[in-house]
Amino acid sequence: MRFFSDNAAAVCPQVLEALVAVNRVDTAYDGDEWSQRLDGAFSDLFGKPVRALWVSTGTAANCLGLATLCPPHGAILCHEVAHIEVDEAGAPGFFTHGAKLALLPGEGAKVSPEAVEEACERVRDDVHQVQPAALSITNASEYGLSYRPDEVAALGEVAKRRGLGFHMDGARFANAIAFTGASPADMTWRAGVDVMSFGFVKNGGMSAEALIFFDPAKAEAVPRLRKRAGHLLSKGRYLAAQILAMLSDDLWLTNARAANAAATELARAAGNRLIYPVEANELFVRMTSEEAAAILAQGFDFYDWGPGEVRFVTSWDQDMDDVARLAAAIAAL
Amino acid sequence: MRFFSDNAAAVCPQVLEALVAVNRVDTAYDGDEWSQRLDGAFSDLFGKPVRALWVSTGTAANCLGLATLCPPHGAILCHEVAHIEVDEAGAPGFFTHGAKLALLPGEGAKVSPEAVEEACERVRDDVHQVQPAALSITNASEYGLSYRPDEVAALGEVAKRRGLGFHMDGARFANAIAFTGASPADMTWRAGVDVMSFGFVKNGGMSAEALIFFDPAKAEAVPRLRKRAGHLLSKGRYLAAQILAMLSDDLWLTNARAANAAATELARAAGNRLIYPVEANELFVRMTSEEAAAILAQGFDFYDWGPGEVRFVTSWDQDMDDVARLAAAIAAL
Amino acid sequence: MRFFSDNAAAVCPQVLEALVAVNRVDTAYDGDEWSQRLDGAFSDLFGKPVRALWVSTGTAANCLGLATLCPPHGAILCHEVAHIEVDEAGAPGFFTHGAKLALLPGEGAKVSPEAVEEACERVRDDVHQVQPAALSITNASEYGLSYRPDEVAALGEVAKRRGLGFHMDGARFANAIAFTGASPADMTWRAGVDVMSFGFVKNGGMSAEALIFFDPAKAEAVPRLRKRAGHLLSKGRYLAAQILAMLSDDLWLTNARAANAAATELARAAGNRLIYPVEANELFVRMTSEEAAAILAQGFDFYDWGPGEVRFVTSWDQDMDDVARLAAAIAAL
Amino acid sequence: MRFFSDNAAAVCPQVLEALVAVNRVDTAYDGDEWSQRLDGAFSDLFGKPVRALWVSTGTAANCLGLATLCPPHGAILCHEVAHIEVDEAGAPGFFTHGAKLALLPGEGAKVSPEAVEEACERVRDDVHQVQPAALSITNASEYGLSYRPDEVAALGEVAKRRGLGFHMDGARFANAIAFTGASPADMTWRAGVDVMSFGFVKNGGMSAEALIFFDPAKAEAVPRLRKRAGHLLSKGRYLAAQILAMLSDDLWLTNARAANAAATELARAAGNRLIYPVEANELFVRMTSEEAAAILAQGFDFYDWGPGEVRFVTSWDQDMDDVARLAAAIAAL
Repeated sequence: MRFFSDNAAAVCPQVLEALVAVNRVDTAYDGDEWSQRLDGAFSDLFGKPVRALWVSTGTAANCLGLATLCPPHGAILCHEVAHIEVDEAGAPGFFTHGAKLALLPGEGAKVSPEAVEEACERVRDDVHQVQPAALSITNASEYGLSYRPDEVAALGEVAKRRGLGFHMDGARFANAIAFTGASPADMTWRAGVDVMSFGFVKNGGMSAEALIFFDPAKAEAVPRLRKRAGHLLSKGRYLAAQILAMLSDDLWLTNARAANAAATELARAAGNRLIYPVEANELFVRMTSEEAAAILAQGFDFYDWGPGEVRFVTSWDQDMDDVARLAAAIAAL
Repeated sequence: MRFFSDNAAAVCPQVLEALVAVNRVDTAYDGDEWSQRLDGAFSDLFGKPVRALWVSTGTAANCLGLATLCPPHGAILCHEVAHIEVDEAGAPGFFTHGAKLALLPGEGAKVSPEAVEEACERVRDDVHQVQPAALSITNASEYGLSYRPDEVAALGEVAKRRGLGFHMDGARFANAIAFTGASPADMTWRAGVDVMSFGFVKNGGMSAEALIFFDPAKAEAVPRLRKRAGHLLSKGRYLAAQILAMLSDDLWLTNARAANAAATELARAAGNRLIYPVEANELFVRMTSEEAAAILAQGFDFYDWGPGEVRFVTSWDQDMDDVARLAAAIAAL
Repeated sequence: MRFFSDNAAAVCPQVLEALVAVNRVDTAYDGDEWSQRLDGAFSDLFGKPVRALWVSTGTAANCLGLATLCPPHGAILCHEVAHIEVDEAGAPGFFTHGAKLALLPGEGAKVSPEAVEEACERVRDDVHQVQPAALSITNASEYGLSYRPDEVAALGEVAKRRGLGFHMDGARFANAIAFTGASPADMTWRAGVDVMSFGFVKNGGMSAEALIFFDPAKAEAVPRLRKRAGHLLSKGRYLAAQILAMLSDDLWLTNARAANAAATELARAAGNRLIYPVEANELFVRMTSEEAAAILAQGFDFYDWGPGEVRFVTSWDQDMDDVARLAAAIAAL
Repeated sequence: MRFFSDNAAAVCPQVLEALVAVNRVDTAYDGDEWSQRLDGAFSDLFGKPVRALWVSTGTAANCLGLATLCPPHGAILCHEVAHIEVDEAGAPGFFTHGAKLALLPGEGAKVSPEAVEEACERVRDDVHQVQPAALSITNASEYGLSYRPDEVAALGEVAKRRGLGFHMDGARFANAIAFTGASPADMTWRAGVDVMSFGFVKNGGMSAEALIFFDPAKAEAVPRLRKRAGHLLSKGRYLAAQILAMLSDDLWLTNARAANAAATELARAAGNRLIYPVEANELFVRMTSEEAAAILAQGFDFYDWGPGEVRFVTSWDQDMDDVARLAAAIAAL
């Protein structure tokens, strides 16, 4: 019974069907009709004209986006456990040609406006110090917390005042929207976000993520950057089709709600063992190593997350009987 | 009737079936059983232990490979119309952190040992000039010619003597093997090739290419480079499965033979209009713009390839009736 | 008797005196009064407000300048024997984070507007090909030819129309100005040049070159790029002082005229052995290897420049008796 | 009366004389006899064969050195206020093509073996996390503390065990040697240091720093990297001459002792206002802003160093009467 990562989940049937549906001769790269539909589909979703490109990983989406916001000699402010800092093998440094990540503290992997201000204040405005150029947040955060639109807007306000481009890593954006009930627009561009990675792979997709620019003019160079990074697949329609399938009938939200519901059930069982409130599909739970071993022995697969902590992640296809069993096992500790 | 690119072809049924077959919960990234089988599958194919990694584009395969052969301050020798020079948006410069491509002449986009020697001779061995570090060839070439094993070996000998790493862009390797009947081993490592890109997407795959290192020790950093370039997909099993399906029962050869056969039929019709002999699945044909327009008007889709030249590309799924029609149309000019 | 490079000449006395004159406590980096005077001094020279920065090598000047004109995914058009292509160890690739040099043919290392047009025409405007972003010329050229202002203007016109930034490598700008009698303004910004490297080291300086931006707004990031490349010396006043000394009383022109005069005297002796007219301080002379050996045996030091060719370079401090001796030796061949 | 930076000091007379002494025609770049003497001079100083190259800034020395120790996908461990982190404009990211700096805590800007171990322990050994590849320390540290040879050796032991290259930023190495009385060998290679920047500019030089490789085999690519970064001056003898003058008769030590002595006198006056012991030529002193203003009003120039702290730096040419006056002024607070 797998609770170690939503990356390990299967692909949802509608996505597989979409692959079959586009399996015919068509224009290569992103000239096909499905790829050409992405701008429109996301413009509808966000209620404004946006530019949307498919890529095949969240790392590519994040780093292509950041490369448009931060010059090689600039810094990107992010949380000290942000995925771009701890889990992308230095990809931001690669795509930006050496920009720095300047790390911010913050409870639950969330960044506060104050932390951004302080980080900016600490930098002398001279040529010796790397000047902040962008802010990146992850929503839902690496500890499963969801920013609310007003929190994003407060960060957006600081970013604007400080001249920082504003990026959102939305690997689990669907879970954040499902949890908060906020509109995609309020959570992003209305709150000042310039660029986002909109994740699908953790939510039932196979190999397609979307990179969204809320100001299409800022995206002009991105198709070149994507090609130059080896990320322009020659049969792009198979990526576009996945994304369109996920957007169709709000499948992305349906899947995220299922994952969140599983996490919520586990959260009830975990009670005050929870290190953070559960606001998406991840749980961080206090547990001695003996307790963790006991859970493991019952066939549940999950990650240790440092001394006395474990992480459970639920996904769109989680078997609710497994969830009930795990909830019972945790409650019984 | 599409003859403009093998990139535009459909995905072959066995590949689609393979995606369905691995659609279950499994370990993320490349820890799954299918990804783990790649080394073995290619070691069997090549008759020696190799290291094989999936990536999702030929550009990524080429450039990750080249990055292991050439330092940022070195040069990669390649043909002046090599794909890495004219069709990868500068990706080699990105992945190698600024290495140069030093361009070689050569009939039919093929590189000769003499051209390599001359290029090396022209460089003064001092710190002011960029020193050649690698040689890259494309087999089949950009003009549809297939190197024979002894031609590759002659280049391999120069490369070795000159201290150059040797890379083969095998986007259409299958077509070259199908045409020459050579063994994969004779065409590559026995001829001195260090690293190759083994193409599947133009040959019936969806989004999986293989990057092969004939000396696994030289591949040590590559998984990190792949991740850092955003090319480690989180559900890697869907790439591995495509490749394994293509290797199974020599599907890769069957598909390439079909594409080559279609090209051969067209070649017979083109006769002495052919600019190069047809040794794979591409034809470059002399044709006035009026003639080209006439072919186009009959519903055949293809590319102009400079004044008085057009290019036809056939693929694994080419309808042989369409081929017969195009052959007739060309013959009737 | 040294005729192999103006790089090997001594430093002229006024420059050494200038070093002594600023040898006192002062603000570090480029905050000192001499560094602060550079903008004004060059603005006076060029007859318009410019931004001028010291650096310690021509390579740094060229490549910092080019980095402001060409993005990592762009191409710089230059002559196939341009210094940036053949003698800077790939520095353009380093400073631009991987941009390409696209090579142009041209007699005497000079670039023609037609060659620029053709190079631009050859590039398809799609994401697969690297798009030209800048043009770089060397004046005087690598073969000692001086562009006239109208020639530069014709290139400037093409550059503007094609959207290319325009860079001039002026390692021997002084020699070109001395030869043509053109005004610095007519030779540069009035002819469309955006950025130039203004050389002093080959002309009597010790370690200071100037990087000039004719639109100061385009130079905004350059102080950061300079620092990031390790080119912000902590005692910058010793560089600024060299440049100010060279500009004072037109010392830069006086020195260049002396070097040119020596070359002119040699040119007369060389007569129709000259491969190119002598329009600066370099001579390229046809000579058999026996003849070259005979000259060498008489104590003259110079470079072979390929089969049957040698290069002589004169400098500001050339002993005119040596020049007369070499002229006689050449005439006597 | 200047106490704000040793970068602002004058050049010492022996260095100026050395420039005059080499002012003649000679081979360009680093082919001249003085440049060629550097390896020998430093090999003598360190008691083992080393490779020594001149560069013109400490940033270039540090970053060229680090680029040989850390691949683009690696991390360099350093103190969180290390010069390479806070004062080099991201140059390490530029020269290493995007490697990370991983920041360590530590009193007085000194790094402890425990901090290195902890930082290494925190990194999972997988492809998602950037692996530590090098350790860099500054001696004397950014807060004017000098590591002792045994402290360096303890770090060298960890570095070796962990497979980290070991770099020492020796911008004020002379001051550390002058303070500790240690031998240059004990402070560096005998303690495991692989590469160091040996500073001269803050100690009476004009524009020459040395980059030292204790294993010459590891320096093979460095001349190319130096050229590619625009740091190969064409009249290199003027850099070499400065360094040779500083090494002659232990001038580097004499100058450092003078600077240290001035700092020591100030330290006595500062008494328990000192934030760190004075072990080189820098003082960090507690002072209210009113007190700081009072000192400033008496004509002493220095930097604020955060709330309630100021920094004084002494240099080789410090007027001891000024020092006595400042000491009195501090004592009188």
